[in-house]
Amino acid sequence: MNTSETAGSTLLRAGVLGGAGYTGMEVLGLLARHPRVEVSFAASRSLAGTPSPVPGLSYEPPSLEACGEVDLVFLCLPHGVATRWVQDLRDAFGDATPRLIDLTADHRPGSGNEQDSVYGLAEVAAARMPDARLVANPGCYPTGVILSLLPLAEAGLVDPARPLSVHASSGVTGAGRTPRQDLLFAEVAENYRAYGWGNRHRHLKEMRALLPGLPLIFQPHLLPVARGILETLTVPVVPGTSAQEIRACWRSRYPEDSSAVRVLPEGLPELRQVVRTDLLVLGAEEVAGIDPPVVTVGAALDNLGKGAAGQAVQNMNAMMGWPLNEGIRWQP
Amino acid sequence: MNTSETAGSTLLRAGVLGGAGYTGMEVLGLLARHPRVEVSFAASRSLAGTPSPVPGLSYEPPSLEACGEVDLVFLCLPHGVATRWVQDLRDAFGDATPRLIDLTADHRPGSGNEQDSVYGLAEVAAARMPDARLVANPGCYPTGVILSLLPLAEAGLVDPARPLSVHASSGVTGAGRTPRQDLLFAEVAENYRAYGWGNRHRHLKEMRALLPGLPLIFQPHLLPVARGILETLTVPVVPGTSAQEIRACWRSRYPEDSSAVRVLPEGLPELRQVVRTDLLVLGAEEVAGIDPPVVTVGAALDNLGKGAAGQAVQNMNAMMGWPLNEGIRWQP
Amino acid sequence: MNTSETAGSTLLRAGVLGGAGYTGMEVLGLLARHPRVEVSFAASRSLAGTPSPVPGLSYEPPSLEACGEVDLVFLCLPHGVATRWVQDLRDAFGDATPRLIDLTADHRPGSGNEQDSVYGLAEVAAARMPDARLVANPGCYPTGVILSLLPLAEAGLVDPARPLSVHASSGVTGAGRTPRQDLLFAEVAENYRAYGWGNRHRHLKEMRALLPGLPLIFQPHLLPVARGILETLTVPVVPGTSAQEIRACWRSRYPEDSSAVRVLPEGLPELRQVVRTDLLVLGAEEVAGIDPPVVTVGAALDNLGKGAAGQAVQNMNAMMGWPLNEGIRWQP
Amino acid sequence: MNTSETAGSTLLRAGVLGGAGYTGMEVLGLLARHPRVEVSFAASRSLAGTPSPVPGLSYEPPSLEACGEVDLVFLCLPHGVATRWVQDLRDAFGDATPRLIDLTADHRPGSGNEQDSVYGLAEVAAARMPDARLVANPGCYPTGVILSLLPLAEAGLVDPARPLSVHASSGVTGAGRTPRQDLLFAEVAENYRAYGWGNRHRHLKEMRALLPGLPLIFQPHLLPVARGILETLTVPVVPGTSAQEIRACWRSRYPEDSSAVRVLPEGLPELRQVVRTDLLVLGAEEVAGIDPPVVTVGAALDNLGKGAAGQAVQNMNAMMGWPLNEGIRWQP
Repeated sequence: MNTSETAGSTLLRAGVLGGAGYTGMEVLGLLARHPRVEVSFAASRSLAGTPSPVPGLSYEPPSLEACGEVDLVFLCLPHGVATRWVQDLRDAFGDATPRLIDLTADHRPGSGNEQDSVYGLAEVAAARMPDARLVANPGCYPTGVILSLLPLAEAGLVDPARPLSVHASSGVTGAGRTPRQDLLFAEVAENYRAYGWGNRHRHLKEMRALLPGLPLIFQPHLLPVARGILETLTVPVVPGTSAQEIRACWRSRYPEDSSAVRVLPEGLPELRQVVRTDLLVLGAEEVAGIDPPVVTVGAALDNLGKGAAGQAVQNMNAMMGWPLNEGIRWQP
Repeated sequence: MNTSETAGSTLLRAGVLGGAGYTGMEVLGLLARHPRVEVSFAASRSLAGTPSPVPGLSYEPPSLEACGEVDLVFLCLPHGVATRWVQDLRDAFGDATPRLIDLTADHRPGSGNEQDSVYGLAEVAAARMPDARLVANPGCYPTGVILSLLPLAEAGLVDPARPLSVHASSGVTGAGRTPRQDLLFAEVAENYRAYGWGNRHRHLKEMRALLPGLPLIFQPHLLPVARGILETLTVPVVPGTSAQEIRACWRSRYPEDSSAVRVLPEGLPELRQVVRTDLLVLGAEEVAGIDPPVVTVGAALDNLGKGAAGQAVQNMNAMMGWPLNEGIRWQP
Repeated sequence: MNTSETAGSTLLRAGVLGGAGYTGMEVLGLLARHPRVEVSFAASRSLAGTPSPVPGLSYEPPSLEACGEVDLVFLCLPHGVATRWVQDLRDAFGDATPRLIDLTADHRPGSGNEQDSVYGLAEVAAARMPDARLVANPGCYPTGVILSLLPLAEAGLVDPARPLSVHASSGVTGAGRTPRQDLLFAEVAENYRAYGWGNRHRHLKEMRALLPGLPLIFQPHLLPVARGILETLTVPVVPGTSAQEIRACWRSRYPEDSSAVRVLPEGLPELRQVVRTDLLVLGAEEVAGIDPPVVTVGAALDNLGKGAAGQAVQNMNAMMGWPLNEGIRWQP
Repeated sequence: MNTSETAGSTLLRAGVLGGAGYTGMEVLGLLARHPRVEVSFAASRSLAGTPSPVPGLSYEPPSLEACGEVDLVFLCLPHGVATRWVQDLRDAFGDATPRLIDLTADHRPGSGNEQDSVYGLAEVAAARMPDARLVANPGCYPTGVILSLLPLAEAGLVDPARPLSVHASSGVTGAGRTPRQDLLFAEVAENYRAYGWGNRHRHLKEMRALLPGLPLIFQPHLLPVARGILETLTVPVVPGTSAQEIRACWRSRYPEDSSAVRVLPEGLPELRQVVRTDLLVLGAEEVAGIDPPVVTVGAALDNLGKGAAGQAVQNMNAMMGWPLNEGIRWQP
């Protein structure tokens, strides 16, 4: 069998492909502290030979061989590259292919490659994880939008006949670590800008797949911060729906001990409640003077935490039958 | 008469009350470079005796006497204090009261004190300025919202039956210079947050007064930048309205040589196009897949520029019959 | 005796006075995760009744009574206030006064009140801690300067006849959380400035007391970052002293398993290696073309970590006979 | 002859090679407002066809032909490329080569190519400019170091027998606009670091050439700001030298009306006094308790202003016999 044994307990052997990007480093940092995991390799072509975030472990060049020695591989690669790795791994190892958690967009709903993967919105899909061989880890923006809206839509609180505007802002690590002029410090600091306008952002497909029938308007922006996403949603609700009812709906869906979601008793969340954590914090407030009514919903998460590495660790936990929140961060 | 004469040309004598706040300093900086103005005094209780932004001019304590010696006074005071100054000046000087530009909220539409003031949205109200004795300088958020929507509403392009969501973000100088824990560097940096939720922000009254009949949802946020406002509006338009038509509507209303408004040929504006200028930059983009249709409108301005001091200078220009844009900034 | 018992193991009962400032919150955060500590109270006059960083614990008003119920109290008060609390506690409880760790400057060397306290430079003073009743936790700047220079001076590598220039830069949390205009975001961002020039900074006394005979020139600066200190020292060394020899001297004095000091194999440290950790990272590099020779020494620490709360926890560990590094942070 | 005539006055025709980098854009912005200059071309290979900072002027690909049509060319190219352009221009146009201001390091003292250029430290070299055909615009760091020290050294106030430590910090635009991972926002924000240690920075040669005999220790650092340099110098002075004497020495050398240098009456300068200006601000403070004595000198300048484009415009002014400060910025 495929797991290592240390001091009487059995550790899962995990590897990371693409370990030198922001997401890969975050996954490695979480795995290094996870009590049930041993990091077998951290692969990076560019940093091979230098120390990784895992104490005592240096980066090595990516290889099929290293993947074949472990139980689980996290794919933290550029979008478009993961499908090739999945194919190569299956060609090489067949049924013995390690289990895979893909943090790229390659296997998410709407990608065209979603057929043999499980979409890893942890709080929603945990039950399907024990049998999953390939998990598509959700995008950072969709994680906040879907987890906040899905329970409300299922409870019949959202009016699908009116459009639902999602105003989203992300820190720059969401755009990756590959050098680009528009991500230089002197271009981002003291700036703020919209991008991907006109409902053209790639993540919209993913949201629509999970929230069919909701007319979403999704407008992302780039914030002058390193990490974190804040989403402010203008949600058309059925008449009579209070903010209190919305909060209660979330709370019943996301118990604190088995989810990474926290619901504010009042007000809307802010970035610093979530940066360097794996939490999603939700808030709701009624809007005066609008009829039929809308409610403002705020969702905050760290794009590298619950929006990437934190959720990937939750998915690993669910795949292994461990407590969903083992090894994730509650505090900055 | 009341103006000084220098080297053959006549300079307007101006004074500033509240010259040590961010707005007051910005007004002083603009006046110091204005070719037709002589700054007679810069008043600040806290900084009296220290140098002002006007070369060679020190701050002095505020006094009715100093105001009596000038042609025009800019009121850059805390909200609520300007009404008292206006009353005291009128009591003291009667018809000889200097002309006044009030940068506080005290005399704006919705304040309850708007009866004898002219609302100074420069591009809209310039014609009424030559006779104005008291100008209420608009709020920073309303300047972008009203100047972008008013022409569209008047042209019948906006559908007033559907709500119009305004997502706005401002730099911290919008909150003033008085020390507050939540404005400390360590609280603002790497953070982003909503405030004034539920349609409770003071500026909403001002917007509604100028845009009657539009069901506005106004949600402001605080950005980790010193200066600048970006507003992203989800505008319900009458079917068939293109982004190109919206741009054309703005262009016909705001000629480049007699307004501070610039219209992007495509895309949405970003903060750094406007920071340290007195411009308002507008952009419009259609949104795919939403029916009845909406258009995303972006408005960017510097809260201290077009959102305060720059517009005050435009109003001064209009009051004096000078070119509207004299002495304002086109480039950072 | 004075400790509580939980699940078979005995937890130290600790309280924090001044728990709502940056230092107090950091101490609470570390104590909350410390495996041998139970936080009995978090006192704050301003935040009484609101949640503290310790899960499940609200702030309460400071009281002698609460202090009397615990084993150890951390004094995270404004400078000048700690001496009064120490006196009041001793008057109230005599020999039963809880053990105290004072994070203010009140009992440090050079304060005039240092007679009955132990100076808590953890790596240097650990042996004296088991008997200490009152520990003066070192200043943030002196921690880096003294820990880097003391071993070199004792090894005879520093030439005391030439001045030693310390150029230091700190993030704004070093100045505390009380609102001040010069600490507002809009005043600090995009700025950098010297302060406390002319060898007048309070921390110089503390450095001189521990480094007698070294002619220190200490020039602090304020960085536009929330946390972290970087100190660049120009150290006059005895001829023939290599950077390698300096690194070896540090390494022999600070073993990795019993100190919070890390020595770089080459180069100088940077802030992000230490922010949100309790480490002090040191580096040394030779300087070409200067005779008699100097070496550039770099010291990086988090002013709230090793510069305050992290070192306080180390001191608590040493007072209790626990491993010096229990419960401190190695990674951001 | 070679100048254009507009409305009775003759405008200098200028062009910029490398107009899309931070320095090139800054030069273009200053030239666009200069009353005696017409910008004939702004060349950039990467941005050809897009608008330049000069109203109405688009970038064009660099060409010898365009250079041949103008009076003066600013070389804002990568280091190492300017020498080739100078050679090609001279080959093509011989004695009719336009006058050149080189903002790269290629022709500065210590470069090996300085023989036929004039070093353009504006306040020092203005007298040599009227005849200059090729001006080597100084580096940003050397501008502050040399202008602060040269008058003191010439006045015999500096003790050349003791080393002089220069601690310098620069904003990221000093490193240029070419994408690099270590200049990404997420790498620079909340960080601060030394680089070029061991007296190995390229600018040291330039300083030594102008300050022969002074044993300089130069340690640069990277600040999390876009623009600005702050240099803190520990200057060994001859006994009896007061800070007041140092300020007087600077003031007599740099009159306010014919230099870009400002001397503080007390204290040390800060970044925001100079950012977005073309000023160099100097301050001096005595250091207590050090014998033989040292004085702390602070020098602040904008690396793109007095450290690059502002000084280049001063040099152009001097070459043309115009007032040295025409068209430069005194206020942010």
